[in-house]
Amino acid sequence: MKKLINDPTTVVADALAGVAAVHGDTLTVHTDPDFIVRADAPVTGKVAIVSGGGSGHEPLHSGFVGPGMLDAAVPGAVFASPSVGQIHQAAMAVASDAGVLFVVKNYTGDRLNFGMAAEMLTAMGIPNEVVVVDDDVAVEDSTHTAGRRGTGATVFVEKIAGAAAEKGASLEEVARIAKKVNDVAGSMGLALSPATVPEAGVPNFELADDEVELGVGIHGEPGRERIVLEPAKALLKSLADAVVGDVPIASGDGVLTMVNGLGGTPLIELYVVAGDLAEYCAANNIKIERSLVGSYVTSLEMAGFTITLVKADEELLELWDAPVNTPALRW
Amino acid sequence: MKKLINDPTTVVADALAGVAAVHGDTLTVHTDPDFIVRADAPVTGKVAIVSGGGSGHEPLHSGFVGPGMLDAAVPGAVFASPSVGQIHQAAMAVASDAGVLFVVKNYTGDRLNFGMAAEMLTAMGIPNEVVVVDDDVAVEDSTHTAGRRGTGATVFVEKIAGAAAEKGASLEEVARIAKKVNDVAGSMGLALSPATVPEAGVPNFELADDEVELGVGIHGEPGRERIVLEPAKALLKSLADAVVGDVPIASGDGVLTMVNGLGGTPLIELYVVAGDLAEYCAANNIKIERSLVGSYVTSLEMAGFTITLVKADEELLELWDAPVNTPALRW
Repeated sequence: MKKLINDPTTVVADALAGVAAVHGDTLTVHTDPDFIVRADAPVTGKVAIVSGGGSGHEPLHSGFVGPGMLDAAVPGAVFASPSVGQIHQAAMAVASDAGVLFVVKNYTGDRLNFGMAAEMLTAMGIPNEVVVVDDDVAVEDSTHTAGRRGTGATVFVEKIAGAAAEKGASLEEVARIAKKVNDVAGSMGLALSPATVPEAGVPNFELADDEVELGVGIHGEPGRERIVLEPAKALLKSLADAVVGDVPIASGDGVLTMVNGLGGTPLIELYVVAGDLAEYCAANNIKIERSLVGSYVTSLEMAGFTITLVKADEELLELWDAPVNTPALRW
Repeated sequence: MKKLINDPTTVVADALAGVAAVHGDTLTVHTDPDFIVRADAPVTGKVAIVSGGGSGHEPLHSGFVGPGMLDAAVPGAVFASPSVGQIHQAAMAVASDAGVLFVVKNYTGDRLNFGMAAEMLTAMGIPNEVVVVDDDVAVEDSTHTAGRRGTGATVFVEKIAGAAAEKGASLEEVARIAKKVNDVAGSMGLALSPATVPEAGVPNFELADDEVELGVGIHGEPGRERIVLEPAKALLKSLADAVVGDVPIASGDGVLTMVNGLGGTPLIELYVVAGDLAEYCAANNIKIERSLVGSYVTSLEMAGFTITLVKADEELLELWDAPVNTPALRW
């Protein structure tokens, strides 16, 4: 696997140098330990939102730092949780009197390390809450995970909780909204090809020329089954049926949607899938209120996509539409 | 090559259905013939900017339709020019009393078909200008091209001319600014892997496991040479030396830059390259005024990247910073 890197051991540091060079006007990149904060942090009176996890999923989380979304992102090594000390220092850099909300994808390492960093804040008298995202309906329990994996809903939790925090909502209220988003969100994905962690140097799984991993995780974890490649419309239906049946989303409901590329899939294919999803929703009398199409939660160069559906009400729509100014989401 | 499509013959139509479903509030998608216009077109008193070309380079051009950039985008089949009639109808749908600027990448088919559509407008008494983008410094003449190929600078020409048009500049003035951007811009790219046109079904070239096509075109056209894969920093230096020497860009100059993914390259790698480009520019006393990092001019699922440098002055910077509201660029 050919990669555009300088050294397998410095990929994260080198990419952070790029983030600092490109976004230094709005973000501050700290190194050793590594974390990224909005340049005006800490913001007095505003709940600070801190997220993070293994690298390799960009723009998640570093691309979502800025007004209206995250105060800090904490990147671990590729596909590995950041350390407790790293998370703690990031939180201390952005914590205001209003407290800290940690948004944590449900992987064992992240749960453990973010949980300990949160306890350290509590011991210091800094109010905080931890909200766990576990939206991937593909499988119960998985490699690295007890319970469901956290994936695309993270974008919606971070955007919507970020908007609430920006409006001055209390820690309790921001945590309530973050949990609400996770509770009404579901995601599932599939892979056409594996990814190669730079330091490993070999693909994280193998697929035959006509095979698809249905329900794949964003670290290449096994999904529900391997199937033969089908037309996009049929693949989309398998994913959407699983998500809609699980959340559950009923006829007449409105939704926020995301068609998300896993890193190696071009935009033209994502728009084909987006068209199929629109047709699916119309046929099931589900109203798409807002949609995102692009590569937002990736798995290095994996080819494939995920879909996320979030049941929407007025409260979530208003917060979704609120201004956001980050490298990867801006309106 | 596994693709997320429904049928190799309907990829463009299916993707346009997705664009219509996702962006129907701000864009209007016409079919048979296919073209995409901003929903409020024609805008009285404003020069209309029309671009287009083969599909497979998304978000170019459809993702750049909207206030502050394009009035219309005309997509051909994958890697094939749109027809004369298609371009003509798109131009007629957006033409106002202020005239039409066509932005055309330098490929023989595009030159011919946009040129004939422009002549049809002239015959109808609609003032218009054609500006050709030919920024790729890799090779003189190429498959499909007499003279240099048009590539990444198209994003800058469309954004900056779009801003001038939005401010009410005359057709002559908008054309002058578009040409000026092309004159001070240079690009070059490289591929780590080929792409497969859906209807062809086989890769458009072959590369060994350790090979790089240096100077590749966005349809997989041959570049300057095949080299063995090097660290990102060395690859970036080869491209930047070629661009800086050609434009030319001298010590003390300011630049707009783009590190552009070709479709199959993940963002983490593009940020590694962006860090290397920042280091290169600092070492050569070139000031990066603004930068874009992402996949803006793609070649289906090709892995690799291009860089574009545009020598910047106050006029170009001010127009670059002007508001834009399109699916792929928004500020």
